[in-house]
Amino acid sequence: MRNILVIGAGKSCSYLTEYLQKKATTENLHITVADISLENAQKSIGNHLSSKAIEFDVFNEEQRIKEIQKADIVVSMLPARFHIEVAKNCIEFKKHLVTASYISEEMKELDALVKERGLVFMNEIGLDPGIDHMSAMDVIHRISDQGAKILLFESFTGGLVAPESDNNLWNYKFTWNPRNVVLAGQGGAAMFIQEGTYKYIPYHKLFRRTEFLSLGDQKFEAYANRDSLKYRSIYGLENISTMYRGTIRKVGFSRAWNIFVQLGMTDDSYTIEGSEHMSYRDFVNLFLAYSPSDSVELKLRSYLKIDQDDVMWDKLVELDLFSSTKKVGMANATPAQILQKILSDSWTLQENDKDMIVMHHKFGYEINGEKHQIESSLMVKGENQTFTAMAKTVGLPVAIATLKILNKEITTPGVQIPITKEVYAPILKELEEYGIVFNEKKVPYLGYNPDNVNG
Amino acid sequence: MRNILVIGAGKSCSYLTEYLQKKATTENLHITVADISLENAQKSIGNHLSSKAIEFDVFNEEQRIKEIQKADIVVSMLPARFHIEVAKNCIEFKKHLVTASYISEEMKELDALVKERGLVFMNEIGLDPGIDHMSAMDVIHRISDQGAKILLFESFTGGLVAPESDNNLWNYKFTWNPRNVVLAGQGGAAMFIQEGTYKYIPYHKLFRRTEFLSLGDQKFEAYANRDSLKYRSIYGLENISTMYRGTIRKVGFSRAWNIFVQLGMTDDSYTIEGSEHMSYRDFVNLFLAYSPSDSVELKLRSYLKIDQDDVMWDKLVELDLFSSTKKVGMANATPAQILQKILSDSWTLQENDKDMIVMHHKFGYEINGEKHQIESSLMVKGENQTFTAMAKTVGLPVAIATLKILNKEITTPGVQIPITKEVYAPILKELEEYGIVFNEKKVPYLGYNPDNVNG
Repeated sequence: MRNILVIGAGKSCSYLTEYLQKKATTENLHITVADISLENAQKSIGNHLSSKAIEFDVFNEEQRIKEIQKADIVVSMLPARFHIEVAKNCIEFKKHLVTASYISEEMKELDALVKERGLVFMNEIGLDPGIDHMSAMDVIHRISDQGAKILLFESFTGGLVAPESDNNLWNYKFTWNPRNVVLAGQGGAAMFIQEGTYKYIPYHKLFRRTEFLSLGDQKFEAYANRDSLKYRSIYGLENISTMYRGTIRKVGFSRAWNIFVQLGMTDDSYTIEGSEHMSYRDFVNLFLAYSPSDSVELKLRSYLKIDQDDVMWDKLVELDLFSSTKKVGMANATPAQILQKILSDSWTLQENDKDMIVMHHKFGYEINGEKHQIESSLMVKGENQTFTAMAKTVGLPVAIATLKILNKEITTPGVQIPITKEVYAPILKELEEYGIVFNEKKVPYLGYNPDNVNG
Repeated sequence: MRNILVIGAGKSCSYLTEYLQKKATTENLHITVADISLENAQKSIGNHLSSKAIEFDVFNEEQRIKEIQKADIVVSMLPARFHIEVAKNCIEFKKHLVTASYISEEMKELDALVKERGLVFMNEIGLDPGIDHMSAMDVIHRISDQGAKILLFESFTGGLVAPESDNNLWNYKFTWNPRNVVLAGQGGAAMFIQEGTYKYIPYHKLFRRTEFLSLGDQKFEAYANRDSLKYRSIYGLENISTMYRGTIRKVGFSRAWNIFVQLGMTDDSYTIEGSEHMSYRDFVNLFLAYSPSDSVELKLRSYLKIDQDDVMWDKLVELDLFSSTKKVGMANATPAQILQKILSDSWTLQENDKDMIVMHHKFGYEINGEKHQIESSLMVKGENQTFTAMAKTVGLPVAIATLKILNKEITTPGVQIPITKEVYAPILKELEEYGIVFNEKKVPYLGYNPDNVNG
């Protein structure tokens, strides 16, 4: 019997646990799901025989050590900042570790110790980061092996509401952590490179500098992720002239979201005195000039130059943003917290709503003096609110990697991300069985400057 | 003989040293000016007999202790972050301390010890903070003593170029630390209260939410300082309905400065690869969308919707912002550092240029059921580049306070700012001898909502 310890029974746990449970008999697995809430852990395992749910506090060192000692491999689905103590114990007791989070500096520093002990610490193996790395490297290695020089790489991912559940003016609902959506893009300028020219977009312009995408009959837009430049070295594309990563939304989302950014409503750096008793209308008025006579509506329209027949305006009204009866009801809240509350009123998935994951890559390359372009797309829909497309695309690669490490199909030791063929090839192959399949096609090379015009 | 140790012979040292030197014989003073550059210290004291210049490193503990032990009072004109070690030694060796900087948390924590030893640690006694506190409290106490309820306090300060030296389209030159000008307004939303309503302005809107001021025949504008709310408790005006502090510029400055903010050129949080060899034009292009054919000029105008006959455009051209021959010449520089360099080319004070300090307060109050308003203004011009208005208005109150503490005219111990009558009354009186005189007048009460209209 091999013991798998899964720490954190969050939203992405459904497919992860189900995968491991289905393999339990043939693979001789016992799964322990550990969560701060025993109820959450229990819900996650259901009535499955080879599974156990436990109440678990990652800050309880004694318990943490005890459970990690019992395991053969540890999966941490906690928020990234909680991984490090788990990781240190995994080194101490020689256990492999799998996470879907970005590698932190602290995690990276463990690399030498992890290698010394022959352990695999696999990170960034969810959706984004995760499937994006694997599917990109699959194409990059394939065309590089043919002798191609890679000129352009663009990659876009979005967690959206499925068209059949899309019934608001924003064409958006929260399918993942709402706080991350409200704070998206903060913390520094977005940076990327296009045709050899560095580009920097400050946060307050991010949602006005979108790129358009058409996938099937759906139109999307994308805003730039924070640091695309670092992926040049991560992907081994140091000399590439275009490198851009972005987040997908339905067309029109960003232009309206920009209103919140312009007003200052996404700010999470200060708290508002007396927020508890404010109405949504009072909240909006905090960001508008004082006037003894003008209405909040007129002040906002005039300030941000919004025509009264602009659909952006209807989007704001749909959120009840100007309600003088709906109350914030949170004391000393930040603007971002209040905005999140207002949006959650309207954007929470309903019982039968389905979510959708969209990923799209563009690869531009030159071979034998000719330029080519490959586009590769993924679209996954959720089944319901538990078995979401997000849970599937995050949880399945984690689960598959966990079993493959346990079965010594993935063995290269170290703190790593899934960019080597040893790792991504078998995982991508198995993901196809679950309908996670990229649709790849050759298109004419477009690039950003096909005619080599200067300017 | 009483020894005064002045640490830091920066720009504000001219009037400070001169004041103390002129009093040296009658007051029996010996002045030591200590600076990291002996040359700077020597320049500051000139040939005066009762003065000594020394090379001084504030991080050299041995030297710091030796010099502080010899002094009767210490004046620290170093940047605020360097005061704390000096302050601790002042406590140890029982010396008074004077600074023109905002009180840091660390400094505030010394209060109990400072009081225990009967010492005066006077801070924020320059121009802003300094003269603003003193001149405001003078009026606030006077009208409060008459039984007035204070409804409104607005205070504006600016360091500008004098009209006779004002010869660029921006009506602005660097009269103080250019870096502070470039970074002004960053680090969080501006917050204030108007007619009982809290108002928050995010950085990227700060320069589009200015207030206008007319003083004499000159027109000014002001943008909001970061945290006006805290001055309610500092000034003892907890229940005031309007509290606003702002920074003065000539009309039109902020609207053009906003271009830099919108582009992201004032960002100091990341460095740019290859900045050394970039032209000013390349720098501008970093913040504009890639295009194989459109010019930098057209992209900028289109992006920020600037008409070609808008004076803002001429302001940019005046700075040579689109030059492809002028080079940045700094490796791995931040956008803010590069912008500062570009602006310094145009905005550095010339040999005979004069600077100007403008301060303006508004006090609204109610007495016997009637509303009144007092406006109080200060305008000080510099003589030349050494004896600037900035050096005068920062250095003189520091010097005067130093002597009054030494002479036991100011005795209340503690870490403090000049908001008590014991402190501000004699200092304001003496400042008048040097032409630092407020012009005070009663005007009709204006407030923000004189007719009590709701909205």
